[in-house]
Amino acid sequence: MKYGWTLAALALAVMNGCTGDSPQYLETAIADLREAADAYHEAASAKDRDAVVALYADDAVMIPPNAERVEGIDEVRNYRFGFIENPSVETQFETIRVDVSTGGDVGWTLAMVEVTFTDADGQPASDRIRDFHVWTKQTDGSWKIVVDIWNSEMP
Amino acid sequence: MKYGWTLAALALAVMNGCTGDSPQYLETAIADLREAADAYHEAASAKDRDAVVALYADDAVMIPPNAERVEGIDEVRNYRFGFIENPSVETQFETIRVDVSTGGDVGWTLAMVEVTFTDADGQPASDRIRDFHVWTKQTDGSWKIVVDIWNSEMP
Repeated sequence: MKYGWTLAALALAVMNGCTGDSPQYLETAIADLREAADAYHEAASAKDRDAVVALYADDAVMIPPNAERVEGIDEVRNYRFGFIENPSVETQFETIRVDVSTGGDVGWTLAMVEVTFTDADGQPASDRIRDFHVWTKQTDGSWKIVVDIWNSEMP
Repeated sequence: MKYGWTLAALALAVMNGCTGDSPQYLETAIADLREAADAYHEAASAKDRDAVVALYADDAVMIPPNAERVEGIDEVRNYRFGFIENPSVETQFETIRVDVSTGGDVGWTLAMVEVTFTDADGQPASDRIRDFHVWTKQTDGSWKIVVDIWNSEMP
């Protein structure tokens, strides 16, 4: 029966992975995803286009307000990210919610972004953006963005 | 060893649920989630507030453009949904992407919404909304919305 009990333990361990009774497992996954979100925020704030693009999955869809959808990594690569293209833009991100599926393969992050920039009249201006990402875990263990949708809190 | 092999089969079956080698399982989950999205669209188009609110999870967060976040089911219940409050609004939804985590507990849907309404001058007007939802599967097997964020495609 030793083998039987080992398998029972394995089955239970795997089932826990599926049903959510695995706080340590999920805590680790959530911490990993929070790090991926931090990497995005650092790359965006540094206007590092390659590092930003590298965080999107091949089948990513980006949904910018008041503009058409951006679909697939080639379109993402050609997308004119406002925070990269506009040299006056400065961003400060704060991740306010993170969650991961019990299987550890899908997660999402919600960040508040304080944006400051110089407007068309040369005056200082600001915006407050809610940046929402769905991420999938890749076979190499890294997290990549599959959905990127945002909007402004400003009236 | 019979018991051992049964457990081995169980472990493999459960592991398949976690790692994605289970197309039938996922197809069923995706079809279920698509039905939940359809139910939302029908309730919204029918201006059925109770049916709309019933599709949100207790810890839902709603992120309307140009307005503050709506957090938790009590705030959702008090939220003035434009498609309910404005009698002139008519909506036509089309679900364009659906995905579910391999554990079957988290999913997301992206819908295009063609909105027509009468503007402040009494003239016919329209909008084109991208409505994005993250859903979690509840213990009773139903899907509920945990994140609701949208924006307009119009310039």
